[in-house]
Amino acid sequence: MTPNKDLKTYSLRETPYFKIYGRTDRTQDPLPLFFNGSGIEVNVTGSELWIDIDVDYEMHEPWVYTTLNGSFMSRQMLTTGSYSLCLFRSMSPEAVKNICLFRELQAMSEDNVCRLLIKGFRSDGDFLPVTDRPFKLEFIGDSITSGEGTYGAKEDTDWLPMYMSTSRNYARMVSDALNAEYRIISQGGWGVLCGWDNDPRHNIPSHYEKICSFAKGKMNEKLGAGKPYDFESWKPDAVIVNLGTNDASAFNQPEWTDPVTGQVFFQRREADGTYNQEDLGRFKQAVRNFLHMLRKNNPGSHILWCYGMLGYDLTFAITDAMNSYQKETGDSNLAFLQLPNTTDETVGSHAHPGKKSHARAAKVIIEYLQSVLYRPL
Amino acid sequence: MTPNKDLKTYSLRETPYFKIYGRTDRTQDPLPLFFNGSGIEVNVTGSELWIDIDVDYEMHEPWVYTTLNGSFMSRQMLTTGSYSLCLFRSMSPEAVKNICLFRELQAMSEDNVCRLLIKGFRSDGDFLPVTDRPFKLEFIGDSITSGEGTYGAKEDTDWLPMYMSTSRNYARMVSDALNAEYRIISQGGWGVLCGWDNDPRHNIPSHYEKICSFAKGKMNEKLGAGKPYDFESWKPDAVIVNLGTNDASAFNQPEWTDPVTGQVFFQRREADGTYNQEDLGRFKQAVRNFLHMLRKNNPGSHILWCYGMLGYDLTFAITDAMNSYQKETGDSNLAFLQLPNTTDETVGSHAHPGKKSHARAAKVIIEYLQSVLYRPL
Amino acid sequence: MTPNKDLKTYSLRETPYFKIYGRTDRTQDPLPLFFNGSGIEVNVTGSELWIDIDVDYEMHEPWVYTTLNGSFMSRQMLTTGSYSLCLFRSMSPEAVKNICLFRELQAMSEDNVCRLLIKGFRSDGDFLPVTDRPFKLEFIGDSITSGEGTYGAKEDTDWLPMYMSTSRNYARMVSDALNAEYRIISQGGWGVLCGWDNDPRHNIPSHYEKICSFAKGKMNEKLGAGKPYDFESWKPDAVIVNLGTNDASAFNQPEWTDPVTGQVFFQRREADGTYNQEDLGRFKQAVRNFLHMLRKNNPGSHILWCYGMLGYDLTFAITDAMNSYQKETGDSNLAFLQLPNTTDETVGSHAHPGKKSHARAAKVIIEYLQSVLYRPL
Amino acid sequence: MTPNKDLKTYSLRETPYFKIYGRTDRTQDPLPLFFNGSGIEVNVTGSELWIDIDVDYEMHEPWVYTTLNGSFMSRQMLTTGSYSLCLFRSMSPEAVKNICLFRELQAMSEDNVCRLLIKGFRSDGDFLPVTDRPFKLEFIGDSITSGEGTYGAKEDTDWLPMYMSTSRNYARMVSDALNAEYRIISQGGWGVLCGWDNDPRHNIPSHYEKICSFAKGKMNEKLGAGKPYDFESWKPDAVIVNLGTNDASAFNQPEWTDPVTGQVFFQRREADGTYNQEDLGRFKQAVRNFLHMLRKNNPGSHILWCYGMLGYDLTFAITDAMNSYQKETGDSNLAFLQLPNTTDETVGSHAHPGKKSHARAAKVIIEYLQSVLYRPL
Repeated sequence: MTPNKDLKTYSLRETPYFKIYGRTDRTQDPLPLFFNGSGIEVNVTGSELWIDIDVDYEMHEPWVYTTLNGSFMSRQMLTTGSYSLCLFRSMSPEAVKNICLFRELQAMSEDNVCRLLIKGFRSDGDFLPVTDRPFKLEFIGDSITSGEGTYGAKEDTDWLPMYMSTSRNYARMVSDALNAEYRIISQGGWGVLCGWDNDPRHNIPSHYEKICSFAKGKMNEKLGAGKPYDFESWKPDAVIVNLGTNDASAFNQPEWTDPVTGQVFFQRREADGTYNQEDLGRFKQAVRNFLHMLRKNNPGSHILWCYGMLGYDLTFAITDAMNSYQKETGDSNLAFLQLPNTTDETVGSHAHPGKKSHARAAKVIIEYLQSVLYRPL
Repeated sequence: MTPNKDLKTYSLRETPYFKIYGRTDRTQDPLPLFFNGSGIEVNVTGSELWIDIDVDYEMHEPWVYTTLNGSFMSRQMLTTGSYSLCLFRSMSPEAVKNICLFRELQAMSEDNVCRLLIKGFRSDGDFLPVTDRPFKLEFIGDSITSGEGTYGAKEDTDWLPMYMSTSRNYARMVSDALNAEYRIISQGGWGVLCGWDNDPRHNIPSHYEKICSFAKGKMNEKLGAGKPYDFESWKPDAVIVNLGTNDASAFNQPEWTDPVTGQVFFQRREADGTYNQEDLGRFKQAVRNFLHMLRKNNPGSHILWCYGMLGYDLTFAITDAMNSYQKETGDSNLAFLQLPNTTDETVGSHAHPGKKSHARAAKVIIEYLQSVLYRPL
Repeated sequence: MTPNKDLKTYSLRETPYFKIYGRTDRTQDPLPLFFNGSGIEVNVTGSELWIDIDVDYEMHEPWVYTTLNGSFMSRQMLTTGSYSLCLFRSMSPEAVKNICLFRELQAMSEDNVCRLLIKGFRSDGDFLPVTDRPFKLEFIGDSITSGEGTYGAKEDTDWLPMYMSTSRNYARMVSDALNAEYRIISQGGWGVLCGWDNDPRHNIPSHYEKICSFAKGKMNEKLGAGKPYDFESWKPDAVIVNLGTNDASAFNQPEWTDPVTGQVFFQRREADGTYNQEDLGRFKQAVRNFLHMLRKNNPGSHILWCYGMLGYDLTFAITDAMNSYQKETGDSNLAFLQLPNTTDETVGSHAHPGKKSHARAAKVIIEYLQSVLYRPL
Repeated sequence: MTPNKDLKTYSLRETPYFKIYGRTDRTQDPLPLFFNGSGIEVNVTGSELWIDIDVDYEMHEPWVYTTLNGSFMSRQMLTTGSYSLCLFRSMSPEAVKNICLFRELQAMSEDNVCRLLIKGFRSDGDFLPVTDRPFKLEFIGDSITSGEGTYGAKEDTDWLPMYMSTSRNYARMVSDALNAEYRIISQGGWGVLCGWDNDPRHNIPSHYEKICSFAKGKMNEKLGAGKPYDFESWKPDAVIVNLGTNDASAFNQPEWTDPVTGQVFFQRREADGTYNQEDLGRFKQAVRNFLHMLRKNNPGSHILWCYGMLGYDLTFAITDAMNSYQKETGDSNLAFLQLPNTTDETVGSHAHPGKKSHARAAKVIIEYLQSVLYRPL
C-alpha cells in the first residue's frame, strides 16, 4: 500500500467540528465513551478518514459500530491498545461524508480497566459543522437497553460484550426514526430497587446523577466517570425509562447476602406465589423516588416509563407507584407504555430480546413519542 | 335451475347437532343472534346446505359472514324478510363440511326492530356433532370490539352497520388463533361510566348481567334479550375488557342533559387541560365496580383489561382503579394490557381501527393469553 | 322495516351514467356479465342503492363481490331468480358514493344455463358520470386467472364456483395498483394448445375473437356470447397472457379421445421423461399462432406473457416460440415474465395459488408494467 | 489487559480441522481468499480464538465479516499489514463454537496488490471437525453477485469495496437457507460477452477455468490465482449464473477502443432503438459457448441461469441462446429463472440491488432450488 501522504492528524481539541453522543466529561482529551450509544459524529470531505482511539480492558472488550451517511457500515471488537481505525478510504474527495462511530458495549461496572477513548482523527479533508437534531431523548434501562441479545445465536448463553449493541437497539431505532440525539444510561441485571439477584446495590437511581459511576476504579475516576452529571447541559425532550424487569426477577431468586456487611436483601413471595406486599411496597417506593429524581433533574421533559419486553409482571406495581407520584405532585407530564413481550419468534441470544423484538418495541415507542413530540404547543 | 329434491327441512329444534355462539336465550326457536360474533356452526355431509333465517330492522340492517372449513367465504347484507341463504352447493356429498355463519353487526340499541333469527336448515346431508373448542373467551367492549371501521374506505365517515364486523375483528382473530369459542358484548360509543358524549346511560356494566338488554322494545323482550344472563352456563377462561376509550372521549365533549329528567352529566377538564379529579374518580369507581361485577359472575376467569387502540389517555386512571380493586380484594387473577395505538397506516373507516390495527392488537393479546392459558396448573 | 318510498327504478338503458367492465354485448338489456372481473360501476348520491339482477344456472352458481368507494364490502353467492341486491342503505344522501359489483365466477363453459344479467338500479339519489381510468389491461388465462383457489381452505379439493374470484385475483390487484380498467378472458383447465387432460378443444385462442364463446347454448347465443368481439371498441395498453400451465399438465396425463370422432390427442413424453419434441413443437406453434392473433387484434398493445405460478416447466418452450415469433415479425413490443411459483405458504384451496400467491405475482407484474406504462413516449 | 497465556499458535497447516470456502490454491500456506464468499470455518473449544492474517492492497482494501454459531457478529475493513483478529474472547471454554470468517470484497481485477491471506489461528481450545453441508452451489455473476450496493446509503455513488458484501448477498442467503456450501465467481461490470462499457476483455467465461485469474500480477501468480481450476475437486449440485446485465448495458454505451491494439468493440442499437441483430447474435453465441463450457466442467450439475435484478432486457436473447444450446445438445438439466427487478423500495447504494432486493431474489431461487435439490432421484 502506498500511504496517503495528505493525511493530517487532529487531536480531538484540534478537530474543528464534531458532535459527541452520550454522557461524558467533556473536559477530557482523549474523551471517554462510557455508555453504549455513546459516540462521535463528524462531517468531513476528503478521500480518507481515520479515528485515533485508545482501548483497554481486563475482561470485557468494547465493540463499536460505524455508519456512513446514516447507513450501517461496520461492527467490530476493539482489542487493547492505542491505534487507529480507518472509517473510509478512496472516496470522492469533494463530497461531504457523514460518519458516526458508536460504542456497542454498555458502561462496564464489572471491569475497572475497560475504556474506550477518542483521541482524534486523521484525514485529508476538511471538517464541517454537524447539524443538531431536532429532538433529544434519554433512555434509562437494564440489559434490554444495553442491547443484550441483539447479536448472537438463539443458542448462545454466555454473558458477553459482543451480544450487546446500540446498532440493533430499540433506543437507536427510536432515535433514528424521530431524528433525535440520544443518551443511554443502562446496566444489565440492574433494577430500580435491586438487581435480578436481589443485590440492592444494583439499582440505577443511585448512579443517575453521576456522569457514569457504573465505571469504577482509579482510571475511571480520572476520566471523570464519578463527577456529577450536568443536567443543564443537555435537556431531553423525553426521558424513557425501561426498568422493572430485574426487580421482577428478584422475586424469583434466593436472598442476597452482602459479602462485606453480611446484611441480607430479599424480595419475597408469599406461600401462594403472590408478591409479599411489604417488599412490593419497597419497589413501589423506589419507583416513586426515582420519578421525583427524574423530575427534579429534568423539569421540562416528558417522562415515559416503558415496560414489558421481558414480561408484564410488575405492571400493577409500576402504575401504582406512578399514580401515587402523580397524586403527590400533580405532575401530568408522564406516561406508562407497555411494550410487546418477547416471543420465540423475536428472541435473541441469552434469552434476551432479539433485533425483531427491539424493532417491534421501537415501533410502539416511536408512534407514542410522535404524538407527544409533534403535538402543537 | 333444477331444484334439489333431496333437500330436507329442519327447524333448529329438529337439527340433530349444531353449536350456538354468543349470548342468547336458548329456549327460543327461532333463535335470535343478538351480538356481532353470535352465530351458528354445523358439521354436515351432503351436496347442499341452506340456512333459514328471519330478518327485520327499521334502520340498521344486519350483516353476516360465513366460513367453510374455517375459511372466510361470504359476507353480505341481510335485507328484511323470512328467507333462506345457500351456504354451499354442488359439493362432494360424502365429505363432512364445517360451516359457520356469524353476525357482523353489533347488538343494536338504536333500532328496536332489528333482528336476526335462525329458523333452521335445509340439507340433503346428515348433521354430525360439533367439536367443542378447548378455550372460552368473553370480549367486552365498545365500537372497537364491535369492529367498527374494519370495513369501508378510510374516507367513509357514516356510522353504518356495514363498517362493523366480526370477520375482521381482533376478538375473532384472538379466538381463532387460540382455538377458542368466544362471546362479544359490545356497543359503539359506550363506556364504563358513560358514553363518548357524556350520556351516563351508555355504560356497559348496567347491561352486563342481562342476556342482551342493549336490544330493547317488545320484540326483543319476547326474544329474551332482557332476561338475566346465566353465568353458570358458559364459563370463560378469560374475560377481556376493552373499555375506557369513550370515557376518555367524554372529557373532550360538552355536558349531556337528560332529555327526560333534565339532569346534567359532565366529565370535566380543568383550566390547564388536566382531568377534573372528582370526575376522574367517578370513572375509577366505575371501573372498580365493574371489576367486582365481573369477578362475582366469573369467579374462575382471568380478567384482562385491554386499552390503547384509540389512545392511552386513561391508562393511569384504569390502572389506579385496578390497583385499588386488587388492594380491596387480594384478587391477583387479573392483568392490564396496552394494545398498540391505531396509526395512519392501520386506521380503517370512520377514524376507527382498521383490519391492520385489529391484527396488530390481536397479536399482542394472543401472545399474552398463550402465557396465561397454556401455563401448567 | 319502513320501505324507502323515494326509491326510483331505472332500467340499465334509463340509468344516466354507469361503466361496464368486461367483454359483453352492449346491445343487450338486461346486460350479461360473462367473465369474472366483469361488472358495473356507478357514482351515485342518495341514501340507498339497489341493483336489479337476473340469475340462473343448472350447476354452477355465480358469485359477486361489491366495493364501496374502492373498498371490499361484500361477497355472496347468487341463487337463481330475478331479484334485487341492496348495495348500500342509510348513507348520508348528499355524498357521492362509488359502487362496483363484479362477477367472481369465470365464464362458464360447463353450464349452458348459467347467467348473470344486470337489469338496472333502484335509488333515491342521482347518478353521476364515472371517471375513466388512465390504463386498460386485458388478462388472458386459465384457472389461475379465474382465481380458482383464492377462496376456500387448503384442504378443499372440489371444483367449485365459490373458490374462484376476482376479488383476490392478481388481475384485479394489478389493475387496482395501476388504476387500470381490466378485462379477463379465462377458463380453468384450458391451455394454448389443449386442456390439462389433452382435450384439444380446450384451447383459449379458438375463443379469443368471440365475445364469450365459452358460454354456449341457445340462451348464451341470444345474449350475444358467440358474436365476434369488437377489438376496436376497447384497446388495451397491455395484453397479459398467463397460459401454458395446462399445456404442461397435458404431458403428464393420458391421451384424450374425442367422444364424437374417436380421434386421439396426446402430448407425449419420451422414455427418459423429456418432452416429445414433435408434440412440444405443436405447443410452440400454438403459442406462435396465438401471438400473431393477439397482435393482429391489438396492434398497439404491449404483449406480456406471464408464466410460473404453478411451475416453470414450459419456460423454454414458450420463450422459444416467442423468439421465433419475434424473428418472423420483428415485433419487439412484447415480453416474457416469470411469476413466483406457488409454495406451501402461498397455496390456496384445490392446490391452486392462494391469495398470497396472487399478491406476490401481482407485485412482480405491477413493477414490470409500471416500467412499460409509465415510460415516456 | 492481562494476556491469555494459554493461547497456542497454529499455522494453517498445523490447524487440525478447518473448512475452506471459495476457489483457492489449497497448496498455499498462507492461504489466499480471492473471492467474496471465500472464507474459513472452524469448530473450536476454549475461551478465545484469534485468526492470523496478512493483508495488502494499493487501492481497494478487503473487508470481512464473521459469524459465531451461524449468526452475524462483525464486519470490518482490513487495513494493510500482518496481524491478528480476535474472533471471540471470554467464552465458556468447554462449549464448541462454530466460527466463520468470510471475505466481503469481490476478487479484485483492478488492484494487483490486493490480497487477503489466512496464516493460521491462536487459541486456548481444541479444534474439532467441521461438518460438510449436504449441498454445493456455485454462483457466477457480476456486481450483483459481488454484492455491490448491499451496504451504503441510497445516495452513495462511489465504486467502493465497502459497498460490496457476502453478508447481505443473495448467494449467501440461498446457501444458508439450503444449508449449502457455496463458491462465488463474480466481477462487477463484467458480462458474458463484454463489460458494461463494451470492453470485450471483461467477460467472465474467459476466466472461468482458472482459479481466479481476475487477480493479476506477480503476487497473485505466486498465490496460484492463474492456475487451472480443478473442477474434479468440488462438484456443485447447481451452477447458478446471474449474468447478462452488463451485456445489456453495453448496448446503451459508446463503443470501446482497445488501448493497445486500437480495435473497436461495440454492441449497437438500430435507429429505432432495437438491438442490432448481428451484435445480439454475438451475445447469444457467447451465452451458448458459456453453457458448453459450464457443462463440460460440471457434467452433473443443474445449470440455472438467473436474470432480472437490474432489468429484463435480454430475456429473449438469453432464452434463445439456451434454447439453441438445448437443441444442439439435448441437455435438459438446465433452467432459466427471472428474479424480481430492483425497485425504489429495494435499491441499495450506487443504484445497485440493496439487501431487500437480494432477499427477494434469494427467496425465488431458494424455492426453485428446493424443487430441484430435494426431488427424489
